[in-house]
Amino acid sequence: MKLQELGEFGLIERIRKATPRGRGVRLGIGDDAAWVRSRQDSLLITSDLLIEGVHFDLKWTSFFELGYKTLSVNLSDLAAMGGKPAYLVLSLGIPIDFKAEDVEEFYRGIRRLASQNGVALVGGDTSVSSSFFISAFLVGHAPFRPITRSGAKVGDDLYVTGTVGDSALGLELLKSSKARGKRGEIAYLRSRHRFPTARLKAGAFLAKKRLARAMIDISDGLLQDLSHLCKASRTGAVIWREALPLSRPYQSCAGWKGVRYALTGGEDYELLFSIRAQDRARLEKTRKQLGVRVTRIGKCVPARSGITVVNSKGAHLPFSEAGYDHFKNRP
Amino acid sequence: MKLQELGEFGLIERIRKATPRGRGVRLGIGDDAAWVRSRQDSLLITSDLLIEGVHFDLKWTSFFELGYKTLSVNLSDLAAMGGKPAYLVLSLGIPIDFKAEDVEEFYRGIRRLASQNGVALVGGDTSVSSSFFISAFLVGHAPFRPITRSGAKVGDDLYVTGTVGDSALGLELLKSSKARGKRGEIAYLRSRHRFPTARLKAGAFLAKKRLARAMIDISDGLLQDLSHLCKASRTGAVIWREALPLSRPYQSCAGWKGVRYALTGGEDYELLFSIRAQDRARLEKTRKQLGVRVTRIGKCVPARSGITVVNSKGAHLPFSEAGYDHFKNRP
Repeated sequence: MKLQELGEFGLIERIRKATPRGRGVRLGIGDDAAWVRSRQDSLLITSDLLIEGVHFDLKWTSFFELGYKTLSVNLSDLAAMGGKPAYLVLSLGIPIDFKAEDVEEFYRGIRRLASQNGVALVGGDTSVSSSFFISAFLVGHAPFRPITRSGAKVGDDLYVTGTVGDSALGLELLKSSKARGKRGEIAYLRSRHRFPTARLKAGAFLAKKRLARAMIDISDGLLQDLSHLCKASRTGAVIWREALPLSRPYQSCAGWKGVRYALTGGEDYELLFSIRAQDRARLEKTRKQLGVRVTRIGKCVPARSGITVVNSKGAHLPFSEAGYDHFKNRP
Repeated sequence: MKLQELGEFGLIERIRKATPRGRGVRLGIGDDAAWVRSRQDSLLITSDLLIEGVHFDLKWTSFFELGYKTLSVNLSDLAAMGGKPAYLVLSLGIPIDFKAEDVEEFYRGIRRLASQNGVALVGGDTSVSSSFFISAFLVGHAPFRPITRSGAKVGDDLYVTGTVGDSALGLELLKSSKARGKRGEIAYLRSRHRFPTARLKAGAFLAKKRLARAMIDISDGLLQDLSHLCKASRTGAVIWREALPLSRPYQSCAGWKGVRYALTGGEDYELLFSIRAQDRARLEKTRKQLGVRVTRIGKCVPARSGITVVNSKGAHLPFSEAGYDHFKNRP
């Protein structure tokens, strides 16, 4: 059904009916504001904007994936603070020729991940728009003191969860019809781009145990996000090329690109964090409780040294911090 | 300066520097999430989407006004619940050829109203976009039990704050270069469109004294918003044409349009609410504490009677509930 026939209020009614009420929600979609319960006196609030043609392309993204990813990206921001997600608000700008079923498929993607993470969709706004965009807003609780970007000190170890580069390589393999590699490996990399995993368990554990001193999620690329962490903490960093955690599919499909995507490709949604060097043993002992592998990839150095990537022979590799800037890098 | 030269992170840095920290804010713009204090265990969350060409036209709207209005619209939603605003998050899609100064002017409009209402800007996202749009999220507290849309009963009186129709007539007078009327009156009506007032004091008082049983703010037009209230409350309504509160400038400039804008024009951001008939004297006694005049304009009737507008002779006037639907009414 065309949106034009259904109308704005018809669409909202459909979304409302398909949305379970959720924990802590006293009043959800359909009034002037949502009315929810705050379980702690500390709240975390994050937001993300996804625009067609800038952040995603419907040529290789389904509406379900897009919904899933929208929430995933916001969950990842809360994970990077050690927070616990609770309430989601979604505003959508929708081209007039979209089908109501497409929009509902998007919300199905949202609900799939929302129900897995105890997140309630409590409100939002919809409007006709020349291009498709999604503006998401997530409110969560901070059961433990949040980990900011600014707590890293010179001498800290730098760790990353999971593997890096899979998402950017997966995107390339989605765009290309003549992808070379084993079928299962290509499928794995593509799925890492389509369905990223927010590291909520790891983030919360690192905050609870006060292990991480500074933390950020990798959305714009490892080096770019590292530069944000370093700037906020007033340190520099050395990254060891050989230490980068690369998945087996990445290793077999990356080819001549080597570690390029691992360093500068975005959308991994892994956590990058610093710990005191003397906490290394403590961290390695508790790896299981993190729900994901963590890898030591470098260390914090004085700010004047900047950010460098070195190989095992100590030679500097020619990578800059450059990641994605939405105004400078035009799509 | 062009945004392309400044870049996304340069822009965020400028916004961050110009933004005071605000009450309850532990960590504002610049990390993965904002970290704020919740003063009550009851939160209200609202959102609004403003899209160029749909909700506003830069031909007769300055960036400052747009910022002011963005916040005003969201404050009005909280007012309609009886809430107290606290934290604002703003996401902007910005065409690449916009000047950084324009965006900063927008934020100046936001800050003007934010500081008057104790609202802290705590975060957001920015991205390049083909059209300009603003997605705002406002989190507030509910010091009193919120007033929803669904509490009206048959026999309730219907009241409205302030005057109605000024904003829609003001918009017409902004669009038209050959506006007829007294200069001061035209300026008044235009300013009601450009700088609407959210009725926070009235909303909070009506919630505190438990006077209002159902409440909504008038954004899409009196009859349209009344129909939302009636649908949620399962009642109908009668509106008395002669009782509609019209400003003097409205009366002298509306001409042949009569009460059309008062009934179906949008963006008044006045509060429409129902009270028990026996509370009428109590309400009229406390008018001063509301900070704005209130006017009895009709009453709730059984749902089967629908919504009607009658004149003093009891004749039904030919107005439908039709207000603005973003998918059905194309701009």
